[in-house]
Amino acid sequence: MARPQVVIIGSGFGGLFAAQALAKAEVDVTLVSKTVAHLFQPLLYQVATGILSTGEIAPATRDILRNQANATVFLAEVTRINLDSRTVVAEKLSKTVAYRYDYLIVAGGAGQSYFGNDHFATFAPGMKTIDDALELRARIFGSLEMAELTEDADERRRLLTFVVVGAGPTGVEMAGQIAELTQHTLRKSFRRIDTTSARVLLLDGADAVLPPFGPELSAAARKELERNGVEVRLGALVTNVDATGLDVKYSDGSTQRIAASCKVWAAGVQASPLGRTLAEQTGAGVDRAGRVQVNDDLTLPGHPEVFVVGDMIALKNLPGVAQVAIQGGRFAAERIKAEVAGHQPPAEFKYHDKGSMAVISRFGAVARMGKLRLSGFPAWFAWLFVHLIYVVGFKNRITTLLHWTITFIGRARSERVTTEQQLVGRLAVKQLGEDFQPTIAGTLEPGKIKH
Amino acid sequence: MARPQVVIIGSGFGGLFAAQALAKAEVDVTLVSKTVAHLFQPLLYQVATGILSTGEIAPATRDILRNQANATVFLAEVTRINLDSRTVVAEKLSKTVAYRYDYLIVAGGAGQSYFGNDHFATFAPGMKTIDDALELRARIFGSLEMAELTEDADERRRLLTFVVVGAGPTGVEMAGQIAELTQHTLRKSFRRIDTTSARVLLLDGADAVLPPFGPELSAAARKELERNGVEVRLGALVTNVDATGLDVKYSDGSTQRIAASCKVWAAGVQASPLGRTLAEQTGAGVDRAGRVQVNDDLTLPGHPEVFVVGDMIALKNLPGVAQVAIQGGRFAAERIKAEVAGHQPPAEFKYHDKGSMAVISRFGAVARMGKLRLSGFPAWFAWLFVHLIYVVGFKNRITTLLHWTITFIGRARSERVTTEQQLVGRLAVKQLGEDFQPTIAGTLEPGKIKH
Repeated sequence: MARPQVVIIGSGFGGLFAAQALAKAEVDVTLVSKTVAHLFQPLLYQVATGILSTGEIAPATRDILRNQANATVFLAEVTRINLDSRTVVAEKLSKTVAYRYDYLIVAGGAGQSYFGNDHFATFAPGMKTIDDALELRARIFGSLEMAELTEDADERRRLLTFVVVGAGPTGVEMAGQIAELTQHTLRKSFRRIDTTSARVLLLDGADAVLPPFGPELSAAARKELERNGVEVRLGALVTNVDATGLDVKYSDGSTQRIAASCKVWAAGVQASPLGRTLAEQTGAGVDRAGRVQVNDDLTLPGHPEVFVVGDMIALKNLPGVAQVAIQGGRFAAERIKAEVAGHQPPAEFKYHDKGSMAVISRFGAVARMGKLRLSGFPAWFAWLFVHLIYVVGFKNRITTLLHWTITFIGRARSERVTTEQQLVGRLAVKQLGEDFQPTIAGTLEPGKIKH
Repeated sequence: MARPQVVIIGSGFGGLFAAQALAKAEVDVTLVSKTVAHLFQPLLYQVATGILSTGEIAPATRDILRNQANATVFLAEVTRINLDSRTVVAEKLSKTVAYRYDYLIVAGGAGQSYFGNDHFATFAPGMKTIDDALELRARIFGSLEMAELTEDADERRRLLTFVVVGAGPTGVEMAGQIAELTQHTLRKSFRRIDTTSARVLLLDGADAVLPPFGPELSAAARKELERNGVEVRLGALVTNVDATGLDVKYSDGSTQRIAASCKVWAAGVQASPLGRTLAEQTGAGVDRAGRVQVNDDLTLPGHPEVFVVGDMIALKNLPGVAQVAIQGGRFAAERIKAEVAGHQPPAEFKYHDKGSMAVISRFGAVARMGKLRLSGFPAWFAWLFVHLIYVVGFKNRITTLLHWTITFIGRARSERVTTEQQLVGRLAVKQLGEDFQPTIAGTLEPGKIKH
């Protein structure tokens, strides 16, 4: 009889680790992803701030799986899942392809959420994709370039004000790195502006940074951030974002307008829309973040052949972190292997919390591992060690370690290149607001970029 | 009295080396460039083919010059040069800035030339900027991704046909690398297509590859190219390029239509339009490639305070290579230093030809140095050595050497990331031709990229 067909949607932590866990199974694996690469999202902020190259955190998925004979990788975006006919429909450009499955693992991940204010996105990019990171790289370094050019003091102040919305790990790490850039790295690189006069604001609606780390580390993180020149503003709700700044409402009822050119949005997440398509067909509920309710074994209610893993699931308040996706992907693979082999499959997905970490400054971090609580250098060292292990591929590990040496010891940034598209296309939007007309014809049109 | 003001236009080899040569001079140096980085153009093809990261060949100019106290760097595009008032006008987005100069060094470089057929550019990008390289990276790897997806045999063949126009060093190196990718690197990465069945064509109107290298090396290069699966077609004139292929007219009068998705244009160069602005004001002539006639001392006729260097000059048939720009920039700086110090300035620019090299395959190259003629491994080793020296910055040298080890020994490509903009925006143009409508809304509009 024909080998069971396993279709995996997504090349993130959940999808990739599921595929790899099926390497020795008697199944055919088809991994469909809308991106060519496996993105190591936790290090995205290092691409945005010029530490790492895109290749180091986003190796090509088909190369990671090249020696796994039973795995096929397709670059296409899944637009429909038909549970009754057990088919997945994916599209790329003008092409439409359909795949039949016996088992389906949905690992579509999550995107940024603007809590219903999607127009914020134009002025405050999120931190979910390589495009996001490169766009932010262009905005961060580009703002300083523009500040060096301008003669207008108010505009210069606006260009030298950076606002990060959301004090979770991503927001904290971004704010810390932007402060490191302006306070140290670029201090000597400009002649007319003093980059150390730049302001870095970290806003959050909650009353603490990194709440899940607990009061102790949360306080330590805040202290370290402020020591490095980051202004932490809590109980701060962003009510509007536009080209020239943003409006904030504080918990005490007061409001404020902050003039800032470069805004980063790290506030909320929204599960892949695939979650809704699944829910619509099964009646399984989705929560406010669009995450699907699943059974304890990560299967879709009424569909033991369909698994949902990672950021897409609403189960026992599991956090949206890499480990939940990795362990979920592996669990789904184990169940499929057991069923195919006729063994008793594991009944319940048990998440093993390996803890979490956030880098705050050069050599400074906070880490929570089991009962252990670390801050400062020990936490940073633990971070270094753990992340080097998870960077995919031996070669990437070496170049990454090298870039980290360059940055952490030498305080330099060697990966700062931004393209015309990003620099002009994106910065112009910020500079000129809604009535922006491309100044470089063709940049935003199909076809060749003109210079 | 005030220190003499030296304005340098361009951050390429000519501009950067001129600025550095003025480090100890009693002058203020203002370097104006439309790109933030100093681009190491000879290695651009390695970014396009996934060997190097953008940061490695394009370090930030202001960082290279950060410790040179008398140098200021501005990111802006020069739109006007007024020789009478000795001012340079530059623009960035909505900003316009003017600089007065006592000495001006114009090092605007050259762009791709389509010999009056600029519409070719949409379908066959050139190899002059980081944007070009990333766009080609997206087209090369993207074509293979699309080929893996398609069910149509003709389309697959078209997607697996790569055409490089122009058999100079850039074209030869591109063709050689694409062949290396399809014949070796990616052989095991796809399941439905056999990448070794891909065709790589190298076209040129001349009757030899790398003519300036002389008949001997030219023949050796052609042999090595063909041994690696590149189809070399000489006496071939490209009469049209569109989304699905190109039309060729051969010297024997025969014509041919080649169906190919990915086309690379490395055929001709066109000097920066700044050349014309200069010529119009002085009556100095420009040649067909838009290069300015200059005096033996690289000054503009009638303007001993204005130097033109690098790809922009028409002088004694000097080639458009890095060394002409480097030596020219340094010569201009020497003259300025001498005049400022009241010494006798060097009267004539003498170009010292250090030779030229082109890499053809893994461990295979051709090199011409003085009387010395090398091919094969010795030439390749010489290339490795020379280029490592010229890569700017110690850190870049290390990571570059590392990436080269990865690629040349391990045959891998670690820098293959392409953004949605590049992959979708550009590939779609190729796939759908002129009537392309963006399939991912926002990708080609100002503002945030939607996913």
